[in-house]
Amino acid sequence: MTPSESSRKDRPSLSLKGEGSLKSPARATRAIRLGPLTIGGGQPIVVQTMTNTSSTDVEATLKQIGDCKARGAEVVRLAVPDERAAHIFKEIASQSPLPLVADIHFDYRLALIVLKGGAAGLRLNPGNIGGADKIVKVAEAAGKCGAAIRVGVNGGSLDKKIKSLYGHGPEAMVQSALEQVRIIEQTGFRDIKVSLKSSEVNLTVAAVNLFSNLSDLPQHLGITEAGDAKSGAVRSAVALGILLSQGLGDTIRVSLTAPPTEEVDCAWEILRSLDLRRRGPRFISCPTCGRCQIDLEKLSKEVKERLSDLQAPLTVAVMGCVVNGPGEASMADVALAGGRGKGRIFVKGRPVGTYPSEQLASQLEKEARGLAALWTGDD
Amino acid sequence: MTPSESSRKDRPSLSLKGEGSLKSPARATRAIRLGPLTIGGGQPIVVQTMTNTSSTDVEATLKQIGDCKARGAEVVRLAVPDERAAHIFKEIASQSPLPLVADIHFDYRLALIVLKGGAAGLRLNPGNIGGADKIVKVAEAAGKCGAAIRVGVNGGSLDKKIKSLYGHGPEAMVQSALEQVRIIEQTGFRDIKVSLKSSEVNLTVAAVNLFSNLSDLPQHLGITEAGDAKSGAVRSAVALGILLSQGLGDTIRVSLTAPPTEEVDCAWEILRSLDLRRRGPRFISCPTCGRCQIDLEKLSKEVKERLSDLQAPLTVAVMGCVVNGPGEASMADVALAGGRGKGRIFVKGRPVGTYPSEQLASQLEKEARGLAALWTGDD
Repeated sequence: MTPSESSRKDRPSLSLKGEGSLKSPARATRAIRLGPLTIGGGQPIVVQTMTNTSSTDVEATLKQIGDCKARGAEVVRLAVPDERAAHIFKEIASQSPLPLVADIHFDYRLALIVLKGGAAGLRLNPGNIGGADKIVKVAEAAGKCGAAIRVGVNGGSLDKKIKSLYGHGPEAMVQSALEQVRIIEQTGFRDIKVSLKSSEVNLTVAAVNLFSNLSDLPQHLGITEAGDAKSGAVRSAVALGILLSQGLGDTIRVSLTAPPTEEVDCAWEILRSLDLRRRGPRFISCPTCGRCQIDLEKLSKEVKERLSDLQAPLTVAVMGCVVNGPGEASMADVALAGGRGKGRIFVKGRPVGTYPSEQLASQLEKEARGLAALWTGDD
Repeated sequence: MTPSESSRKDRPSLSLKGEGSLKSPARATRAIRLGPLTIGGGQPIVVQTMTNTSSTDVEATLKQIGDCKARGAEVVRLAVPDERAAHIFKEIASQSPLPLVADIHFDYRLALIVLKGGAAGLRLNPGNIGGADKIVKVAEAAGKCGAAIRVGVNGGSLDKKIKSLYGHGPEAMVQSALEQVRIIEQTGFRDIKVSLKSSEVNLTVAAVNLFSNLSDLPQHLGITEAGDAKSGAVRSAVALGILLSQGLGDTIRVSLTAPPTEEVDCAWEILRSLDLRRRGPRFISCPTCGRCQIDLEKLSKEVKERLSDLQAPLTVAVMGCVVNGPGEASMADVALAGGRGKGRIFVKGRPVGTYPSEQLASQLEKEARGLAALWTGDD
């Protein structure tokens, strides 16, 4: 787990620091283990991503897992498309700094191989993994290894029987999950989580809500095939924002057609924006308008880069004018409000100096690092 | 208004095309006019942005307004920081292809000047515009000109009296708005909308909800000082996604430290993701994973660029493998599912051909343009 978080036992998803209205507390879910982590049961929401290297390229995959960890990923999933990848999985898992989940489709025997290779979890797609006898074998093996199973329904790959009975909507997705959950639970296996993903926000929101009314299993949230780093991030933020604000979701993955590190950044931004978890600085900066007399886009980028390694959950404001600048500065840990050729730096709302434009970013960094050094890791 | 939309009288914000659960219909608001547009009263949600050129640079500002219109902006706001800008506003308004809102702070006389210059609306900040006598003068002048007024509260610039009475929370923001609304309404003026923005998602969500319980005025939604094109887009999408899914909001502006055209793209992506409005293609593409055998990020970018001028609300899927590809393809208007060295094109779920990788984007474009040509403008 990363530095700054609190238990979600009474998670104030729409809380207002004392204002009290509109709270939508985390819905109670079963706590399950996933490697060293707990998913559900009111624990902090876990951030996941998925590698896009070839799963048989050990070096590239480990490098990418390391990069994702540095950005805040806590669990990483790998596609395991064939037997060769399944055998190589062991080598990756033995060196991975994060618990690994193996993504299995079509062939349940791949699951048996990666379980022996150290998978912390499996993701099975009920739409394509085969009949109950195969699921039972996988669940029994997972139970022996202490691995978790995600029943990962995808609205785009429901099996034919489910579609003929329930159509393509949220009920079909939920029934697909429940059917596989029942088979797994009959073996006595308990460490199950469920995901109900589609590329449609409304469908996903409805399916996750419906499932939460029928089951106490923890849920992994995501929008599948969301799109590129721009539109996909927005679509994921809309869906996950709605669900998390309703108190739903125990772990999240943002899916983007982009490097997985971008997925991790986006996931943290979503959690940060709802005050569910904090990691590193939160940046606020004004949209430049006709009042702005400095190159704020450039300045804001420079500040963000200078502070990119900070773990402390500071609020950093970069403001371009005197209308909103001082007000926002008063609520930020460190802030700058720019003007023509110079600007003012604030710490905890108090002005600490006026500097020429070219020194603003470095002075802000200095103050931010000063505050970050005082941070104890609790927040 | 842009091509594809429906009245929001019974807006199915979480509707599921027949599934019916979880609907959160648009809350009833008063309809007001803003230039040629209607805001509120169940009409489609209007997309706004704000120029960041100097408001005294007529040519650059008109160019930017045109660029924003091409991306789907329907209203543009300009900062009017001083008397010179207020006088030049007339020249811009007379040539603008979109209705203009003038952003006024500190000096109410600037409002009187831009009203004569053709402003479709004013944005006043109750935190800094001065006493009731000044507001009354502005409202009377706006009434004569047929212009709308937005009471635009910013959590970072509340006035001292409000802060001493109500603190910094949602109630302070709402009371600040209501106080100014009362003053304006006493003059008989009716075309008022309200915005309650802060840089905090939870605070904004709470304030907008609280206001909607106390007033039927239409609301303009946004997160202020949201940040750069990445984190700001995510934070805005979380906040606006939550509020729109609750049936709140009549017009939106995404504020980014980035060109205003990016704000417009983000606003449309939010509306599109909730099926509230459609404009141009909706792209879905899978996160590349270890199963992917083509350069999907590049291919998806190429497809997006090729179709960037389309107005027809097509769903376009670009998929990298056989696991989710065919399923998603079956739900898209046009789709491609890539493989090693070649891929298959689908139209309305039916495969129409297999092509080498380098022809996939152009073939997909051809099929998309074929479908778009059949589009009548209703959807």
